[in-house]
Amino acid sequence: VRIETICTGDELLTGLTVDTNSQFFQTRLLEVCGATVRRSTTVGDRREDIIEALVEAAARCDAVLVSGGLGPTADDLTAECAAVAAGVALVEHPAVLAHLRERFARRGVTLAENSRRQALVPAGAEVELNLEGSAPLIIQPQGRCTFFFVPGVPREYRHLVERHVVPRLATLLGHSTVRVLRVLKTTGTSESQLDALLAPLSSAHPRLTFGYRTHPPKNHLKLLAEGETREAALAALALAEQAVRQVVGQAIFGADDDTLASVTLQALRARRQRLALAESCTGGLIAAQLTEVAGASDVLWGGAVTYVEAAKTKWAQVPTALLSAFGAVSRACAEAMATGIRAEAGVDWGLSVTGFAGPTGGTAADPVGTVYLGVAGPGGTQVERLHLHGDRERVRRFAAHAALDLLRRTVEGAAP
Amino acid sequence: VRIETICTGDELLTGLTVDTNSQFFQTRLLEVCGATVRRSTTVGDRREDIIEALVEAAARCDAVLVSGGLGPTADDLTAECAAVAAGVALVEHPAVLAHLRERFARRGVTLAENSRRQALVPAGAEVELNLEGSAPLIIQPQGRCTFFFVPGVPREYRHLVERHVVPRLATLLGHSTVRVLRVLKTTGTSESQLDALLAPLSSAHPRLTFGYRTHPPKNHLKLLAEGETREAALAALALAEQAVRQVVGQAIFGADDDTLASVTLQALRARRQRLALAESCTGGLIAAQLTEVAGASDVLWGGAVTYVEAAKTKWAQVPTALLSAFGAVSRACAEAMATGIRAEAGVDWGLSVTGFAGPTGGTAADPVGTVYLGVAGPGGTQVERLHLHGDRERVRRFAAHAALDLLRRTVEGAAP
Repeated sequence: VRIETICTGDELLTGLTVDTNSQFFQTRLLEVCGATVRRSTTVGDRREDIIEALVEAAARCDAVLVSGGLGPTADDLTAECAAVAAGVALVEHPAVLAHLRERFARRGVTLAENSRRQALVPAGAEVELNLEGSAPLIIQPQGRCTFFFVPGVPREYRHLVERHVVPRLATLLGHSTVRVLRVLKTTGTSESQLDALLAPLSSAHPRLTFGYRTHPPKNHLKLLAEGETREAALAALALAEQAVRQVVGQAIFGADDDTLASVTLQALRARRQRLALAESCTGGLIAAQLTEVAGASDVLWGGAVTYVEAAKTKWAQVPTALLSAFGAVSRACAEAMATGIRAEAGVDWGLSVTGFAGPTGGTAADPVGTVYLGVAGPGGTQVERLHLHGDRERVRRFAAHAALDLLRRTVEGAAP
Repeated sequence: VRIETICTGDELLTGLTVDTNSQFFQTRLLEVCGATVRRSTTVGDRREDIIEALVEAAARCDAVLVSGGLGPTADDLTAECAAVAAGVALVEHPAVLAHLRERFARRGVTLAENSRRQALVPAGAEVELNLEGSAPLIIQPQGRCTFFFVPGVPREYRHLVERHVVPRLATLLGHSTVRVLRVLKTTGTSESQLDALLAPLSSAHPRLTFGYRTHPPKNHLKLLAEGETREAALAALALAEQAVRQVVGQAIFGADDDTLASVTLQALRARRQRLALAESCTGGLIAAQLTEVAGASDVLWGGAVTYVEAAKTKWAQVPTALLSAFGAVSRACAEAMATGIRAEAGVDWGLSVTGFAGPTGGTAADPVGTVYLGVAGPGGTQVERLHLHGDRERVRRFAAHAALDLLRRTVEGAAP
């Protein structure tokens, strides 16, 4: 079964936009159907080029996903070209027209003449209504090839691809099984370590496929379960997840939509505990990540970006004598910052980071990339020393991640 | 003149990688040659698919840029397929082999047998050595079509495309002129306002092309100058830039690689002035942007992420009575935070942000999206009220940007 994609749009050929829709489709096609795209073609908003690409693909393929060019304006040519390529007329589809009328009515406006164009589909095509927008998914057979036309707007594209295109391709490919996916997010364990831990599990879980994707400094572990029914697939998934959690343990920080920040906030919230930060080289990155999560204020008291020594003394209660004796990038300073910020804010936990992010700075003993993390909590204070590689951006990002993860593990490990 | 691109690589069809190289080529082709790509094709690492794509493109095009598949491993098939498509042999190119030997010798290793494959090129092809890597640019005529084969590694791709491919295409397209580009970065002025301001300039600057690109909340203004020589083009560019700066004024915050953070730090550094921050809804985003710039510590004293009221009182000296009377999201609080943080840190400038980032919160008078910015400096304190649209992420990002820009304008406008 040969599957291809065609993307249309001048903006994809002039450097204005990078197509990220295709990555979504490719990933889901691989995950759900175990199949890959053979070729991907991009053409501009030009009638002859779109028709040429459609005709060529129809001769080669069993299924083609075509995106873009279904909007209401004059440069939206895809439906028209699809009709020409198939040698059929464009006809107004009553259900799509009703859907458009209803969408416009909901906003209190009448359907404009140009928007009505979005109800035009090649004669003989099937449609699925777009619950996230106007233009429908158009499913059009051309000989042995089935074309799927979807809007290019990412939200609409994803909705229609996930809900209709991928399931239909799964059927076309002969998959009668249902697949469900769960992503477990891990940190501090390499892909090869994960693989070694999980390899012994596969024989006991025949309905599971284990996959990995690296998002440094995180590794995502994908559990794809299949079954005759959704319930059977979910049951297989639950069993496998339990086994995986047993062997991988605390390196798993969350699943699916979790972030390290959301999970850490949730662990603290569940214990009714609060947090304050003292950041030096990460310069606000940890605070920014935590406050990205709505509702962080019930956990996060605040954060001090103590960029100069005077700020460390004033806000994180670091004694001047300690700074003179050990320097700002030191185990002693990280410890003092964590305990100091905890006392300053009067909260349960203090988290600190101090280090050399580069490109200049550092000493022979503590070169660029050296970062000290401090966590002060009800059970005492601990410090970790990291040596990170890479440029300033990478050192800061990895340091912020490692600090949050150290806090998470410490909180989760502490008595509830 | 018809130009196409072909990208090769399984990773581009399985969701592992998004091609961003093409965007670079498309942008430079448009900027330097005024031309666009007619079609872009992506195929996997499969002999028959690569050959098929090459043969089809040769029949249609005047020039084709092919990327990827020039590495040393078994799945690097592009040079081999190019030879098959053209019906010629693969031959070892002496200059490329010497370049490879020298690169390996510089690292103190001898050239491995598989790496030697990278010196193989289709007979009759011309090469340009790759100063950033191993595989050369291969230039191969096939009938009326010229193929340019470049490695897919972004750094190498950009180097070879910029230095060799685009200039040769400019010649092919009949451009005997030299073009130089400068990007002026603006904020607070819409694309249509910029266009209205600049339209009167075009007649006085015939060698200039003005372009726009929106990167909300910034707008980039592109000045593309041409001349018979580089000097002539640069002179035309300088004249035009002067005229543009006169009409657009302070909305231009920087050029080329500048960021709003780097420019703001530089403005303060030039005045030997220092800064402290008090962030509420932006939660550290401003501090993170400023500390992304190496050497920020001579300007940035520190920043307080005052997420709860107690933190505003403790670190930004906001009176409890003021918070009770006006609330944390108010003109009075923004003003008190800016003056308070300035006094707390003992620096020249205090910058504050407080607002409702959403999705919940807000009042009838100050709904979600309301943000107050405060700037306290040697000349006094000012507050601006914004009403921002969009989700939490957007409100925070735009608020951080607007705050930095308010500071920049105020610093630049103050007596030096």
